[in-house]
Amino acid sequence: MAKEGLDGLLLTTEPEIRYFTGFLTRFWLSPTRPWFLLVPALGKPVAVVPSIGRECFQATWIDDVRSWDSPQPDDEGVTLLAGTMREIFEHRVRIGTPQGPETHLRMPLGDFQRLCALLPDAEFTDATGIIRNLRMIKSAAEQAKIAHACAIVSDVFEAFPGLLAVGMTEIEIFRRFKIACLERGIDDVDYLVGGAGQGGYADIISPPSSRSVRDGDILMLDTGAVFDGYFCDFDRNYAFGHVPDQAGKAHAVLRDATEAGLAAIKPGATCADMYHAMQRVLDKDFPGGSGVGRMGHGLGMQLTEWPSITARDETVLQPGMVLTLEPSVDIGGGRMMVHEENLLLTGDGPVLLTRPAPKTLPVIGA
Amino acid sequence: MAKEGLDGLLLTTEPEIRYFTGFLTRFWLSPTRPWFLLVPALGKPVAVVPSIGRECFQATWIDDVRSWDSPQPDDEGVTLLAGTMREIFEHRVRIGTPQGPETHLRMPLGDFQRLCALLPDAEFTDATGIIRNLRMIKSAAEQAKIAHACAIVSDVFEAFPGLLAVGMTEIEIFRRFKIACLERGIDDVDYLVGGAGQGGYADIISPPSSRSVRDGDILMLDTGAVFDGYFCDFDRNYAFGHVPDQAGKAHAVLRDATEAGLAAIKPGATCADMYHAMQRVLDKDFPGGSGVGRMGHGLGMQLTEWPSITARDETVLQPGMVLTLEPSVDIGGGRMMVHEENLLLTGDGPVLLTRPAPKTLPVIGA
Repeated sequence: MAKEGLDGLLLTTEPEIRYFTGFLTRFWLSPTRPWFLLVPALGKPVAVVPSIGRECFQATWIDDVRSWDSPQPDDEGVTLLAGTMREIFEHRVRIGTPQGPETHLRMPLGDFQRLCALLPDAEFTDATGIIRNLRMIKSAAEQAKIAHACAIVSDVFEAFPGLLAVGMTEIEIFRRFKIACLERGIDDVDYLVGGAGQGGYADIISPPSSRSVRDGDILMLDTGAVFDGYFCDFDRNYAFGHVPDQAGKAHAVLRDATEAGLAAIKPGATCADMYHAMQRVLDKDFPGGSGVGRMGHGLGMQLTEWPSITARDETVLQPGMVLTLEPSVDIGGGRMMVHEENLLLTGDGPVLLTRPAPKTLPVIGA
Repeated sequence: MAKEGLDGLLLTTEPEIRYFTGFLTRFWLSPTRPWFLLVPALGKPVAVVPSIGRECFQATWIDDVRSWDSPQPDDEGVTLLAGTMREIFEHRVRIGTPQGPETHLRMPLGDFQRLCALLPDAEFTDATGIIRNLRMIKSAAEQAKIAHACAIVSDVFEAFPGLLAVGMTEIEIFRRFKIACLERGIDDVDYLVGGAGQGGYADIISPPSSRSVRDGDILMLDTGAVFDGYFCDFDRNYAFGHVPDQAGKAHAVLRDATEAGLAAIKPGATCADMYHAMQRVLDKDFPGGSGVGRMGHGLGMQLTEWPSITARDETVLQPGMVLTLEPSVDIGGGRMMVHEENLLLTGDGPVLLTRPAPKTLPVIGA
């Protein structure tokens, strides 16, 4: 903050506030009430939270917790927040708040404009860089939680063929997968997308359909499962009945690309280096893009975090980063395939957190 | 829109975009890519979406789907969005975007400022009222989905005592509840909070702890479970071993307050009327607030929606609204109790969507 001339930060989203306070609740799903955390350049953070959260916030390491009776749509914490800012900051104040890529302001835009009007001497500037640089490097405790989620879901994916059969609907398959994750110790399966189709699938972000899987289908499940507030994010492909030639070839190439990505990862390399290492392998057999737009990303309190593994992302890789490798290919006929692993970068190189997918596609009901 | 002098709407959040397009995906969990929907006052909506979503959006009823290669943090759809707006709207344009209570803008603030700069003749004004008035009244299809979620979870709550025992940890109890919901046909148990304590609990938004439940505990589970993109939102209380006097009394009063709330609901009454009807019952035995701040709310695509059942909310109740009734009391010693049911308001009055909680607290392991 000193380097950027900031007097403090104003944070409003779940991961930002949890990162600095440890405050963990699913209550963020309700959009009714905003939550605010002020992180001064000097001194401890101050929480300005709705009355329903006062008790929970007092259980965190924050000493100064202020609350208003909420809901109160005509003044949803804005006056209290402005008054608190006037009290803890100097007169002419420069406040950082995330305004850049992958961020948003979780409060009504009208309330933010009212806040600015109440603090005419305050300047609100972008603080995405500060938050990004902190959160991209995971602590040992964070690494352990992600690794635990990855280990559980690796077990589930490995055992999953035993729960599948030709004729099941996608909806049924998804439900069984979620139950299997919970039974093995996952807290929540917040993200589960994918689908099945003859020889491949059309997209990778759909909810399950009522279509029954059949011989010649490729099923892909991509999951972001949570343990103690931290995500894993990886997928697996399964063939039903037999492995169609093109799908078998695509799977092998995706596995090879992942190996090439792993070989390219080291402290000091860039995201673009990793991207090119994977793209070179894919280009030999499947030139052209898949529409996914990147081949992996950061991972942690959110399903996806900075950086992005793209051709143009020059973020320098550092020990402590947790990343996904996620090459994808267009295999023609409106179909695609994708494959994803999760890793931790250490000073000695990458350590896979996921048990890697088998070299050949598992076949169900052969 | 005509009444408010708007040329169109700009929408950015999951429920807003799903409401107008039917686009349903868990991919919103990734904060990397923004999504935009333009709803002109005349003509069909136009989607401006990242490349990964093109395929899915073309499967909706929207004909005009434009996409950019994403992620592309230096221009994450902003130029394409501005160009599209210049094309489909007149020169001096007035665009509504939700800026009021319970809304936020799901795009980086910096990108919104860039959009405004690219469209110097556009005026962005608050359109919360339009969205709120549409979404508060549920269609028959929406009502059916919420009712289905309520029916499944009513079954789960009723059968749940058979799965509970003194000595289980809260974490174990929460996990069993989620599995039971999935087994009976729920898609996702996105929201599950609550906890247990001697004679009551300290707050109602916490995740489960590793504490084991014991004789004299009251356990409360409050869940927002999803079926086809629509939530139920209600809770149930259970006693372990025996019913502590104060908890038994509080539960009876909360049930009575819910009955009083139901009796007060009719088209033309206000949220404040309902609030006062419930508060009068609570005040006799448990005067003073609980810190929750309201006694129910709207329900649908989101866990909580407008309106709020507070003393000051003068929203007029209309047929088609789906609401929760959620009275709560402070029972002393840092403990509270809460009770919640879900209802549909018809022209003939309220219809409960949840099977109401038993009059007396169920006792486990007595």
